[in-house]
Amino acid sequence: MKQNKNPTFRHVALSGGVGGAKLVVGLNEVVAPEQLCIIANTGDDFEHLGVHVSPDLDTLMYSLAGLADPETGWGVTNETWDFMAALEELGADTWFRLGDRDLATNVERTRLLDSGMSLSQVTEKLCEQLAIATHIVPMTDGRLRTMLQTEDGLLEFQDYFVRRAAQPRVSGVVYDGAGSAEGSPAALEALACPDLEAVLLTPSNPYLSIDPILAISDIRSAIKALDAPVIAVSPIVGGRAIKGPTAKIMNELGVDVSPVEVARHYRDIVDGIIIDQADTDCMEQIAAMDVAVISAQTVMKSMTDKIELAGIAIEFASTIRSRTEGDGNVGSVAG
Amino acid sequence: MKQNKNPTFRHVALSGGVGGAKLVVGLNEVVAPEQLCIIANTGDDFEHLGVHVSPDLDTLMYSLAGLADPETGWGVTNETWDFMAALEELGADTWFRLGDRDLATNVERTRLLDSGMSLSQVTEKLCEQLAIATHIVPMTDGRLRTMLQTEDGLLEFQDYFVRRAAQPRVSGVVYDGAGSAEGSPAALEALACPDLEAVLLTPSNPYLSIDPILAISDIRSAIKALDAPVIAVSPIVGGRAIKGPTAKIMNELGVDVSPVEVARHYRDIVDGIIIDQADTDCMEQIAAMDVAVISAQTVMKSMTDKIELAGIAIEFASTIRSRTEGDGNVGSVAG
Repeated sequence: MKQNKNPTFRHVALSGGVGGAKLVVGLNEVVAPEQLCIIANTGDDFEHLGVHVSPDLDTLMYSLAGLADPETGWGVTNETWDFMAALEELGADTWFRLGDRDLATNVERTRLLDSGMSLSQVTEKLCEQLAIATHIVPMTDGRLRTMLQTEDGLLEFQDYFVRRAAQPRVSGVVYDGAGSAEGSPAALEALACPDLEAVLLTPSNPYLSIDPILAISDIRSAIKALDAPVIAVSPIVGGRAIKGPTAKIMNELGVDVSPVEVARHYRDIVDGIIIDQADTDCMEQIAAMDVAVISAQTVMKSMTDKIELAGIAIEFASTIRSRTEGDGNVGSVAG
Repeated sequence: MKQNKNPTFRHVALSGGVGGAKLVVGLNEVVAPEQLCIIANTGDDFEHLGVHVSPDLDTLMYSLAGLADPETGWGVTNETWDFMAALEELGADTWFRLGDRDLATNVERTRLLDSGMSLSQVTEKLCEQLAIATHIVPMTDGRLRTMLQTEDGLLEFQDYFVRRAAQPRVSGVVYDGAGSAEGSPAALEALACPDLEAVLLTPSNPYLSIDPILAISDIRSAIKALDAPVIAVSPIVGGRAIKGPTAKIMNELGVDVSPVEVARHYRDIVDGIIIDQADTDCMEQIAAMDVAVISAQTVMKSMTDKIELAGIAIEFASTIRSRTEGDGNVGSVAG
């Protein structure tokens, strides 16, 4: 598929949905889109109303196509809900809401999957149709489903996240299928590119969005074996998550809600981390873990914020790269 | 299912979509809805965009629920098309158009079928949800698909009817699966009701909408064995079909486009036929076939038209019933 058309990726980002997509949109502006590969979490995927829903793939696609709803970050702008309204009148399940336009994406994805195409191939086709130059690829073409061990029992991701609004107390996260899942060919190929300059872990939820990707052993080993620096952006700012249940889950799992814990969580994988300017008091602790660290404005509200943070991440990677090439000292406080 | 709840049907109608649904709407007003059973053609059913589409069941449901689009006769009123518009942007198949609200019916039907329910059970559930008192039942819970032998080859029904707009010349109609299809339990049960007063063949297309039902051998035998009179309403008026390709198909099959041919087509099954007031010159010819015949205003434009024709059909059946009970003379020109 991509092999011949795009022999060279220079930047790879691992991303979940809304939070990660913001940085991805910025990256899309500061690096060459055709040399940027986004490896998307598909641990949230599920079958619902007869269709294969890939929430993170869609959020990334809609964000890069300029279609994303600016209010929610997910779904498409100017969405309509007549399908859901009619479904409700029929007494059907409506806890997971698919807008009329979003449904079309899911129906077409399902049709293509049923025709025998892999999720990678389907995603490539949808991206082409939406004129997205950046390569969005699923982490795997196989089945890996994130599940939550909670006080209400073991829950499927969307059951926990949407139906129960992330309310049940979490005691563990399970990546069902991780033992046998293989990275998608496009993801592995991107990570094998000799010209790779940086791999970014976007500020998506580490447990629910990035870890499922890292739970795939060949992706994890490929990332660990990289020469290119791996940079994370902390989703924790001032002791809180910018969005979603990250902080709540960290609390429930008994870890401090702090960028220090994010760095600790990622330390086997990353060379550097970008923390928020509100958390500069954490820098020494992180540096002591042999993780390079800089602070920046990480809360992305405007397009300018996204572009600036993406630029800082690329620059940080470049600094680490040159330093590693120089004297191998990657564990200091940078910037 | 129905057995205990509804031991007694007094009227049964066989129907396809738009044309038949008009008479069904009238019947629903002139007889007790809970004693009226509509056996719907499902030969047009097909799988499309991952859902099980049952066009005639839906047209009947929407018509009786007062939801049908008054312009087209099919689909729902105030329908929106955002799903199709988005699908088109994705470059997907859009030749068969499912509105946002109509899609909900099809998605819910498919979900219920996938959960193991029969089409009869699913239809009953949908009708309950739409508060329809009349019993709409599929002709079969099995698979019988109408196909057209045409100059373009053997075509699936919707391919012929919608995608090709009924343009290819037809040389034959095939009811694929008819050999093994069984009537749905609810349909057979309705036809076995001892208090049955009339069975009506609505003015749907005889070849494409009524014949698929009659191609199911246990339904056909049950109808032939009935004491209750079987009455057809001719869909041909003044040498033309009121709607759809009936006249075109009759021409292509080499038969006269005339109520006489409709009567000849149904003569094994029916005791009487209602032809249009424009076709009174055909009455003697039809009576000579031992088929009772009356003329009426059969073009149903208003609700009043539908109610009047339904009343005439019920009255005609009553006349034939009393005459049969009297002297067995059913072959004369009545009314």
